[in-house]
Amino acid sequence: MPATLKTAVLGSNGYSGQELVRILDRHPRLDKPVLLRRDGSDGAQDLADIFPQLPGNGGYPPQALSWSELKKIGVELLFFATPYEASRALVPEAIAQGLRVIDLSGAWRLKQAHHRAVYSFEDANPEIAARLTEKAVYGLPELNAACITSAQLIANPGCYATSVILALAPLLNAGIIDRERGIISDSKSGVSGAGKTPTPRTHFVSVADNCSAYSIFKHRHLGEMVEQLGLDDVELTFAPHLLPIPRGILSTIYVHLNRPTTGTEIASCLRDFYAGKHWVRVFANPRVPEIHFSLHTNYCDLGFCLAEDGQRLVLISCLDNLMKGAAGQAVQNMDLMYGWEEREGLQ
Amino acid sequence: MPATLKTAVLGSNGYSGQELVRILDRHPRLDKPVLLRRDGSDGAQDLADIFPQLPGNGGYPPQALSWSELKKIGVELLFFATPYEASRALVPEAIAQGLRVIDLSGAWRLKQAHHRAVYSFEDANPEIAARLTEKAVYGLPELNAACITSAQLIANPGCYATSVILALAPLLNAGIIDRERGIISDSKSGVSGAGKTPTPRTHFVSVADNCSAYSIFKHRHLGEMVEQLGLDDVELTFAPHLLPIPRGILSTIYVHLNRPTTGTEIASCLRDFYAGKHWVRVFANPRVPEIHFSLHTNYCDLGFCLAEDGQRLVLISCLDNLMKGAAGQAVQNMDLMYGWEEREGLQ
Amino acid sequence: MPATLKTAVLGSNGYSGQELVRILDRHPRLDKPVLLRRDGSDGAQDLADIFPQLPGNGGYPPQALSWSELKKIGVELLFFATPYEASRALVPEAIAQGLRVIDLSGAWRLKQAHHRAVYSFEDANPEIAARLTEKAVYGLPELNAACITSAQLIANPGCYATSVILALAPLLNAGIIDRERGIISDSKSGVSGAGKTPTPRTHFVSVADNCSAYSIFKHRHLGEMVEQLGLDDVELTFAPHLLPIPRGILSTIYVHLNRPTTGTEIASCLRDFYAGKHWVRVFANPRVPEIHFSLHTNYCDLGFCLAEDGQRLVLISCLDNLMKGAAGQAVQNMDLMYGWEEREGLQ
Amino acid sequence: MPATLKTAVLGSNGYSGQELVRILDRHPRLDKPVLLRRDGSDGAQDLADIFPQLPGNGGYPPQALSWSELKKIGVELLFFATPYEASRALVPEAIAQGLRVIDLSGAWRLKQAHHRAVYSFEDANPEIAARLTEKAVYGLPELNAACITSAQLIANPGCYATSVILALAPLLNAGIIDRERGIISDSKSGVSGAGKTPTPRTHFVSVADNCSAYSIFKHRHLGEMVEQLGLDDVELTFAPHLLPIPRGILSTIYVHLNRPTTGTEIASCLRDFYAGKHWVRVFANPRVPEIHFSLHTNYCDLGFCLAEDGQRLVLISCLDNLMKGAAGQAVQNMDLMYGWEEREGLQ
Repeated sequence: MPATLKTAVLGSNGYSGQELVRILDRHPRLDKPVLLRRDGSDGAQDLADIFPQLPGNGGYPPQALSWSELKKIGVELLFFATPYEASRALVPEAIAQGLRVIDLSGAWRLKQAHHRAVYSFEDANPEIAARLTEKAVYGLPELNAACITSAQLIANPGCYATSVILALAPLLNAGIIDRERGIISDSKSGVSGAGKTPTPRTHFVSVADNCSAYSIFKHRHLGEMVEQLGLDDVELTFAPHLLPIPRGILSTIYVHLNRPTTGTEIASCLRDFYAGKHWVRVFANPRVPEIHFSLHTNYCDLGFCLAEDGQRLVLISCLDNLMKGAAGQAVQNMDLMYGWEEREGLQ
Repeated sequence: MPATLKTAVLGSNGYSGQELVRILDRHPRLDKPVLLRRDGSDGAQDLADIFPQLPGNGGYPPQALSWSELKKIGVELLFFATPYEASRALVPEAIAQGLRVIDLSGAWRLKQAHHRAVYSFEDANPEIAARLTEKAVYGLPELNAACITSAQLIANPGCYATSVILALAPLLNAGIIDRERGIISDSKSGVSGAGKTPTPRTHFVSVADNCSAYSIFKHRHLGEMVEQLGLDDVELTFAPHLLPIPRGILSTIYVHLNRPTTGTEIASCLRDFYAGKHWVRVFANPRVPEIHFSLHTNYCDLGFCLAEDGQRLVLISCLDNLMKGAAGQAVQNMDLMYGWEEREGLQ
Repeated sequence: MPATLKTAVLGSNGYSGQELVRILDRHPRLDKPVLLRRDGSDGAQDLADIFPQLPGNGGYPPQALSWSELKKIGVELLFFATPYEASRALVPEAIAQGLRVIDLSGAWRLKQAHHRAVYSFEDANPEIAARLTEKAVYGLPELNAACITSAQLIANPGCYATSVILALAPLLNAGIIDRERGIISDSKSGVSGAGKTPTPRTHFVSVADNCSAYSIFKHRHLGEMVEQLGLDDVELTFAPHLLPIPRGILSTIYVHLNRPTTGTEIASCLRDFYAGKHWVRVFANPRVPEIHFSLHTNYCDLGFCLAEDGQRLVLISCLDNLMKGAAGQAVQNMDLMYGWEEREGLQ
Repeated sequence: MPATLKTAVLGSNGYSGQELVRILDRHPRLDKPVLLRRDGSDGAQDLADIFPQLPGNGGYPPQALSWSELKKIGVELLFFATPYEASRALVPEAIAQGLRVIDLSGAWRLKQAHHRAVYSFEDANPEIAARLTEKAVYGLPELNAACITSAQLIANPGCYATSVILALAPLLNAGIIDRERGIISDSKSGVSGAGKTPTPRTHFVSVADNCSAYSIFKHRHLGEMVEQLGLDDVELTFAPHLLPIPRGILSTIYVHLNRPTTGTEIASCLRDFYAGKHWVRVFANPRVPEIHFSLHTNYCDLGFCLAEDGQRLVLISCLDNLMKGAAGQAVQNMDLMYGWEEREGLQ
């Protein structure tokens, strides 16, 4: 392991990419990250010009992607913060070049073909793509730390998926959820989750003073939840909503327990499962997390309410979609991959 | 019936009261409403000074409540936009004085004692209070028009309750909801629903860039939903959330149907039920309502998504909590009580 | 004059156009307005589908613009809510067809060529365009009522310009402003003023939690202010800012008076000037207007602060940019043109 | 100097106090700060409970202020994040105890009695208070670094004052501002600047979708600007406005130059003045700062627009009122006082 790791970021002009560069830039184990742009993309501008939130004045000129150049510089780890199509097209070559990759898109997250159908993959070499899909590690550190450590390709989880999976994993693991009754996640997200491309839907006037549901029953993150939580046999209803805030996710998750349970048991179940996990905070009942508690941090905050019958349980899960839901989690994965403390660069 | 009706409003300095005065002020069938203040309340200021959104400059001086004065002026209908305690204390006398009353608080909405327990009533005369509770008509015009017409005391419904009841009534009426599976309403509301009193929870910095759940399983409007929809035997989970917007409610309601159903059937069920009802709009599938479509109007907008299995149904219900959820509905009730068109003064 | 006037709106899918249709739709003197679309524009969709805020369900199908068809229907008045280029291209023919026109764009507002340079006009027939430019009446009812009454072409004022001109007109008229010292307007506007086209600048994430200055010294509305207020000899600094709100304008205007003056004198000056003008409200010193007082109304609210020296004066002017700043003022102009009360359809 | 400095914070439950604790908590040179509460204040709750944005779960119990206890712990530096009255009452004793003090209130900022009149000081010992007022150093590091280094009492500047002083200092220093023409600052601030106490003015519904001017000509920060910039002979008009955002300040400052000047000269003047100053960024003309560029950072961002006449200049100054406008600047002052790099703990 070199004194400092050399990293590069492809696609640094979206929201996740910007947040990622911001974190990498001040990470104590890293050199300043190399910013890359794809041919034909509009990423020629200095990142500091399009994203002045970065520290200092300028100094983030992106360069054209070149494998030989990356080798010359000594880059070992490449982040993809591109649309999934670009990631699907370029990751195989990156891996072939011996780079380790953390991909923030949905390109490599899903193992099952029927889940992958929500993406339109046109793989140049389907065989290699299939092998990579198999090898890719779903980068949720609280669940998959062991595999992440040695992974060559990390599929960084979706923001909604992270909030739902982290809330449900302890209870499913404990076997106390009544799987027959189904699970519902009513999730609410800030607008940065919808990406930086201006559309009628992300126009300020469309979003402000408003709240709207969308993609009910068919959002792309549904497959991740089913696969990671093993819910093929469970009715999982996922209803995302757009909030008039720039960032943050709150998932309100409705489950039935298979026997009357106390709040203390639920709290223990959550706390025990995440004992020693720095980036998950369990709130003391009856306090529940709110979006702003985890904004600009890498925390996923969990809390719950239990009905008097001890069987209807409402879980609340909050995180910052650009941090624990994207860039922060990517850096957490990097920390694991290189044997550093999981908080390194994230405080 | 006189050429123009004389009305009075007690408690015009809250959000619902202000909206009510704004509507009454331009209602074609009314004289300018008489504004009343309770002894000891801070309502001595001209309403136009604390609420300059009212048309023109000034001219809304509140006067102390006096029954004899009301009689002299010829007031026939008295709106209560007070806290429920004041309404519980004063409505009996108003009724005794022969006035008709529309009460916007929760004081007279609940018939069953175990539901009423969420309020702390200290009735001076419990017998009279009990009789009035019995006589009070739940003022949801789309369901109770006949009783409203001749009512002396209207209990104007809660904002959340209106959004949930109007969404569920058609399907429950059609008997296609699987009552065994329970019903969940994940409701989101703007801040005016929390009232005008400044609290840490309504401070701008607490609300902006945030979303938070509260009062899960125990919100006061739950009893109204159960009573009006006949859900004593159904697990109804109600989870309200605070949105960073001034006004508007979106309820996302999760039900299971007792047999596979098509979207067309659901749409027909909703449309048939509300045929001829001006203030409920049913959205064409797959379009769903958003909060801003009904803001500043008296509409309740309904829409839905049906899962591929034809049994999991998500209903979306939106309204403006100060209009259809409070003042607008109060005026709609008045229109019915006096035999006018239900849109009179509400367009 | 017919029992009801027949109107048409070209370009009803922008924010001003939508607001205009909403008002015209319920105006007591009008038939439902005819919605027109330009060839090649995307305006083929029913307006109610893209703008569900309109009352009822659907029923606003736009039709292709056809002069003969307009004549057949009996349309007398045509509103342009198009980009200025379309207005510049089509208004001459509309006038030639004998229609009266109210144009909400900047196409016909400026008399002086050096001011018009901020627009790129490519007139098919420059002579006719020049003649029309001459004939066009600047539709600020509080200043130009007499000319508006008989106008064939109304150039509806810009939103910023309306807020600044109405604040300054009384004091300039009274001759108490020290013209040597210059005038500064620091104006703040909601995002709907920037139009409905999605751009990086109007993306929710760019606007929320933010405020930014733009077009300082060179905004297009500057020329209108100079021409209407006769300020060719005065240094007028105009600095617009974008606010994280959907609508509303607040202009903070800094002037020096040419002699020590009292607040009472300023108040009288403003009140006397607008005596009998329904849509301008002068606030009692020291209370100053705020944006939300005039939102969703056609009011322009004026207030002020005077320094102890009696010479430094700060004027505050607020209005709703889609109402008094666009559609509301257009309807006010229509009311004048047809001899109706200026409030008709605007309450 | 010990390996790590021991600090304490009095009044950590306001917005500035919370932000301060958040920064101090992760500052590499410090132990975890000791949180203090005043007798009778409501600060007995663990800060992590009222401010869950803090890292980790709990662990910030405030203790009652006791000088002997502070000595025992070895606290050297005490931050006051209290209302100014508490600071005025307690700072003299803290200084007498040999502590160094950084006070975030307005208690010790003003040297001239006629400026101090905006505060109601009731000093127990006026003589000591007068001596301390004299000794207190105005903690604006970019202007007063030398005095700060050795100061015992730092009066941390006001948020508005910081934004205005940093913008004007270079140009006043260069002598190119026409002092006869006066200076105007139209400043806009987020709501956290108004403090955490819930009031009608800070209620979400009052602020959202709104913008309002207040305290024109008479805001408390005016005196700081005059004293620090030496503007006793200049008409300085200061007009603050409340923005519907949680944090951030944008000041738009209008000056006249005493001779025609170029943008290049202005840029050089600003850049030269702040050469080597890490926390002031000068934007390349014509780009101007926006509030969100400096949010959650300690930067003050400066930019400008110059009229074609080369004499009318508009300066734009942005900062985060809780960072460079309060807690961040306090930490920057601490860094200077202890000989550390000015960025220490602030990145």
